[in-house]
Amino acid sequence: MTDATPRYLVGVDGGGTGCRAAIADLTGRLLGQGAAGPANATTDLAQTIVNVRVALDAAAVGLPAGALKHSVAHVGLAGVLDGDIARAVAEELMMRNVTVTDDRAISVAGALGARDGVLAAIGTGSTLAAQRGDSILRIGGWGLNLGDQASGAWLGRELLEHALLVHDGLADGCALSTAMLEAFGGPGGIVRFASKARPADYAAFAPRIVAAGQAGQAAGRLLMLRGAAYLMDALAAMEFGRDDVLCLTGGLGPHYAEHLPEEVRTRIIAPEGSALDGALALAKAAFERGTGR
Amino acid sequence: MTDATPRYLVGVDGGGTGCRAAIADLTGRLLGQGAAGPANATTDLAQTIVNVRVALDAAAVGLPAGALKHSVAHVGLAGVLDGDIARAVAEELMMRNVTVTDDRAISVAGALGARDGVLAAIGTGSTLAAQRGDSILRIGGWGLNLGDQASGAWLGRELLEHALLVHDGLADGCALSTAMLEAFGGPGGIVRFASKARPADYAAFAPRIVAAGQAGQAAGRLLMLRGAAYLMDALAAMEFGRDDVLCLTGGLGPHYAEHLPEEVRTRIIAPEGSALDGALALAKAAFERGTGR
Repeated sequence: MTDATPRYLVGVDGGGTGCRAAIADLTGRLLGQGAAGPANATTDLAQTIVNVRVALDAAAVGLPAGALKHSVAHVGLAGVLDGDIARAVAEELMMRNVTVTDDRAISVAGALGARDGVLAAIGTGSTLAAQRGDSILRIGGWGLNLGDQASGAWLGRELLEHALLVHDGLADGCALSTAMLEAFGGPGGIVRFASKARPADYAAFAPRIVAAGQAGQAAGRLLMLRGAAYLMDALAAMEFGRDDVLCLTGGLGPHYAEHLPEEVRTRIIAPEGSALDGALALAKAAFERGTGR
Repeated sequence: MTDATPRYLVGVDGGGTGCRAAIADLTGRLLGQGAAGPANATTDLAQTIVNVRVALDAAAVGLPAGALKHSVAHVGLAGVLDGDIARAVAEELMMRNVTVTDDRAISVAGALGARDGVLAAIGTGSTLAAQRGDSILRIGGWGLNLGDQASGAWLGRELLEHALLVHDGLADGCALSTAMLEAFGGPGGIVRFASKARPADYAAFAPRIVAAGQAGQAAGRLLMLRGAAYLMDALAAMEFGRDDVLCLTGGLGPHYAEHLPEEVRTRIIAPEGSALDGALALAKAAFERGTGR
């Protein structure tokens, strides 16, 4: 049916905070954008479908009716943990040519484009992905309880743990840990804070750690180097080499650059684009392969 | 008033699981014991008073009426965080000569008696106390979020974190981490477990870690040595020396002995008695000093 011939590219980037959609012509020229509420497919599938639909409709305003039906789409959402969830989302969206993946796939495509390399996304949490041609290897992203090393939440928690060791005489004091002990009125206050703290609460201390590390203060520098050591372990496990580039994103990512060794630092590049750019790029690639389903 | 002359010694040991009381004559000979429900003074003061009373009354069965009024008592309870809580408990108990402290004071008195040394109580949580004459220096006991190093919960959580690093290729695999990954059906299962796990849930894996350490398996041995390194740091901060003894109690404590260096290992002694024995001993000391109020 000629009726189904693709005329547009569609990209969607969805996460726990909100989702964004973009529509472009077949050359990738942007025609419209839209945004809506949360779209984590595991947290709430029904809400996710509604919000993605709202964002898509907003992006398509001003285009001919039925534009979305004549498109090749790539939808990247948080919470797409396996093929079953991806299929469920694709069915509910009722678009002809749609590929559904998790949001890391579009983050990598956006940041690295077609280049081989590693994306280290380090904000409140942390996750790494290595792209080699068509394959993506992932490391981390397990959450603060047992992982998220080098993340903002991890840095904040390490600082408070360090402050308690200082109080007990098991670690050398420093301006930063002394400030924490004073701010909380002693170790009891820190323990009470931790009993209710969520990752974002710990991550609120990350900027002070970054600043202390930049100023060369002992504890700040130690924690940043500990995070950098994790990143180096991950790069080694991904066999990061001379042909790879490294992209550091998120609120914390770029701050690790100065704590990485010279041979890695020289391979750092700025991200080519956003995760939404990545979704559009993957839709374009699917269209060009003629496999946009 | 001769009516108030002490004729008995009373000891109470209370914690989050239950409380126990003991009555002895003025030489320390045991006359009766009783037990009741939880007695953590911070968690629930009213319930604590009721349960301690029940345990005391049960211990006094068969003794002359009013025996408790003619006693010198030491009550050691979890959750006695400061002097205000201690005074509140003492007032509510309405006994003439009663001293209220936290449960660590009676644990130290029970385990070490009058000897100088260190008590390392390591079960689901961990806490250390150094006794030098009349003074007690405490280290740790901050809970699993930011502390409790070397504890059963800490060991279990370290194992699961290690298993995720193994999955990501950032740590060498071993029988124990492989078994955990299989038991949980992969890293996702481990992350889901951790999202709801309480310290006791993590501590359930400690016996397997102890056994692996004893068998010389890499991961088990590594984790036990990491816990032992924390204990050595704490001993150094407490200036553990030639005149000190070391008492390792709790479900995990004794298992660290084989991972400590020779010069420390030779100073390990079995606990002289229980925390309840310690409470009675502190009551006896107060009576002998004539300061049992």
